[in-house]
Amino acid sequence: MAVYTEVSDEDLEAFLAHYALGAALSCKGIAEGVENSNFLLVTESGPFILTLYEKRVRDQDLPFFLGLMDHLAAKGVDCPVPVAGRDGRALRELCGRPAAIITFLAGMWPRRVTPGHCGEVGGALARLHLAGADFQLSRNNALSVAGWHELFQRCRERADEVQPGLARILAAELDAITAAWPDGLPTGVIHADLFPDNVFFRAEKLSGLIDFYFACRDFLAYDIAVCLNAWCFEPDGAFNATKARMLLSRYRKVRPLNEAELEALPILARGSALRFLLTRLYDWLNHPAGAYVRPKDPLEYLRKLRFHQGVRSLGHYGLDGDPVRAG
Amino acid sequence: MAVYTEVSDEDLEAFLAHYALGAALSCKGIAEGVENSNFLLVTESGPFILTLYEKRVRDQDLPFFLGLMDHLAAKGVDCPVPVAGRDGRALRELCGRPAAIITFLAGMWPRRVTPGHCGEVGGALARLHLAGADFQLSRNNALSVAGWHELFQRCRERADEVQPGLARILAAELDAITAAWPDGLPTGVIHADLFPDNVFFRAEKLSGLIDFYFACRDFLAYDIAVCLNAWCFEPDGAFNATKARMLLSRYRKVRPLNEAELEALPILARGSALRFLLTRLYDWLNHPAGAYVRPKDPLEYLRKLRFHQGVRSLGHYGLDGDPVRAG
Repeated sequence: MAVYTEVSDEDLEAFLAHYALGAALSCKGIAEGVENSNFLLVTESGPFILTLYEKRVRDQDLPFFLGLMDHLAAKGVDCPVPVAGRDGRALRELCGRPAAIITFLAGMWPRRVTPGHCGEVGGALARLHLAGADFQLSRNNALSVAGWHELFQRCRERADEVQPGLARILAAELDAITAAWPDGLPTGVIHADLFPDNVFFRAEKLSGLIDFYFACRDFLAYDIAVCLNAWCFEPDGAFNATKARMLLSRYRKVRPLNEAELEALPILARGSALRFLLTRLYDWLNHPAGAYVRPKDPLEYLRKLRFHQGVRSLGHYGLDGDPVRAG
Repeated sequence: MAVYTEVSDEDLEAFLAHYALGAALSCKGIAEGVENSNFLLVTESGPFILTLYEKRVRDQDLPFFLGLMDHLAAKGVDCPVPVAGRDGRALRELCGRPAAIITFLAGMWPRRVTPGHCGEVGGALARLHLAGADFQLSRNNALSVAGWHELFQRCRERADEVQPGLARILAAELDAITAAWPDGLPTGVIHADLFPDNVFFRAEKLSGLIDFYFACRDFLAYDIAVCLNAWCFEPDGAFNATKARMLLSRYRKVRPLNEAELEALPILARGSALRFLLTRLYDWLNHPAGAYVRPKDPLEYLRKLRFHQGVRSLGHYGLDGDPVRAG
């Protein structure tokens, strides 16, 4: 949860003058999103999300993120879209930060994930990948292999404060992943952070995807690997192969996976687990005292990483079929 | 800001079945209120506030708080009211906590307080006092003089961690206030926590009062003293007599103050400053590591206390008239 920037009523009024949304009836900071300041803004036209982009989001990436939402929505993906002001612009400044008003998406994210949710997510992810195919803007994945090396260097010295021996484990895993990382897999726009709190449901039906602020170009199958980590582990740490099967099979009905993608899943899942382990470790070691955000436990991802290290066949992910190469 | 309890979609669905509000379209934790978990709940009937009462609020006080909102609203005070379920009850349980759905009040609280805001607050406070006169339930002010002694005993040993000599200052002030505390002033229902974030405005007009969870019976003039502290100091610590004059004069137009109440204002303001100094000090010394809430600076209220100690005439509060007894 995070609200970093306080928006005064005068500042909001001046900001809203750029839009044809009527006056503000209410504006409340919401306890969602870690990277940005988010407000539930109710105007005379209804509810919206007001987002102020905080320093972790680079200004030059914002046209990619906002353009992507517009593109995906135009292709039928259920996602919020930026609201243009009277001048046609969606991105402007508020309280010294880049800011945008985004449409309100009804739904709630699932606190207790079911196999049914996982199936819905698999289908939606595949539709997102197809819809993104002709999006013209580009953004590299800053949090892929090269980024992990950089992040590790910034945590290395203090990693053992979290668990003795962690720096050594991370160095070895980083080497193994770098050596085994695939190339030539189908590439496109990925969400890259499709955790349960970014997927809304009404009853059991998926109502939309939010938070595209890690979206980038990378292997499409890497996005699936992120979802395996984010959706298919139980709170006790056990991997739920039924959930994985639901997620993968519903994905493949919309966008088939080729042999190379299937074979790469375990190493992509290890990479994805390492990515969240490293960012959480960095946040754990660097969160300011008295910050609003309670850092997430990095070691949850060490346990997930260990699971994927042990995967020897796609049967571990609930799929029948051939053994895969050990990553 | 605070969201302490996470409400699952299933729990919310079962809870909403008690109401005729339709299904939930959205439920987001909001970063307002320190004592309770608050959610902006949008149902098919519109927006509401869902409040889960956390441990600081005593169960036996809830009928007083909820009944008071109903009573005040029926008397024309702009404030939210609890929504009754199909069974007629407004208070039930969610996630193991007492919980209620409250109507949504449009408006925003002022981040930059103007004399105009202070005038509006003064008038609204007086109307609240008049409207509460025939409310039948009772609740003592747990945070009046006896409560301050108790709180001080729980902070005394560690007070000097915040500022050397603070324990000695507090002990002396507590003695002085106890000796000079008035009796026989007009008594009734007070809000007791009418800070700017509990008062909503649309444009420059007050649209309503929220957060009655410190309301109790006490001297009506003590509520004014709370507002002098909460509304009339500038961010740099200076007291703004123009704001105080606006607040007091608009109050007196609705409910005249008698001589004893006017004379008591400086000591009541000292008591109110001491109350927030002590609760903030307690929270400062006892907030758990990693808590969501950033504790507020207790020393802000030491500076306010010092101002009121120096008040020798009501002219300091922007009123013409006689010198007052030094408290």
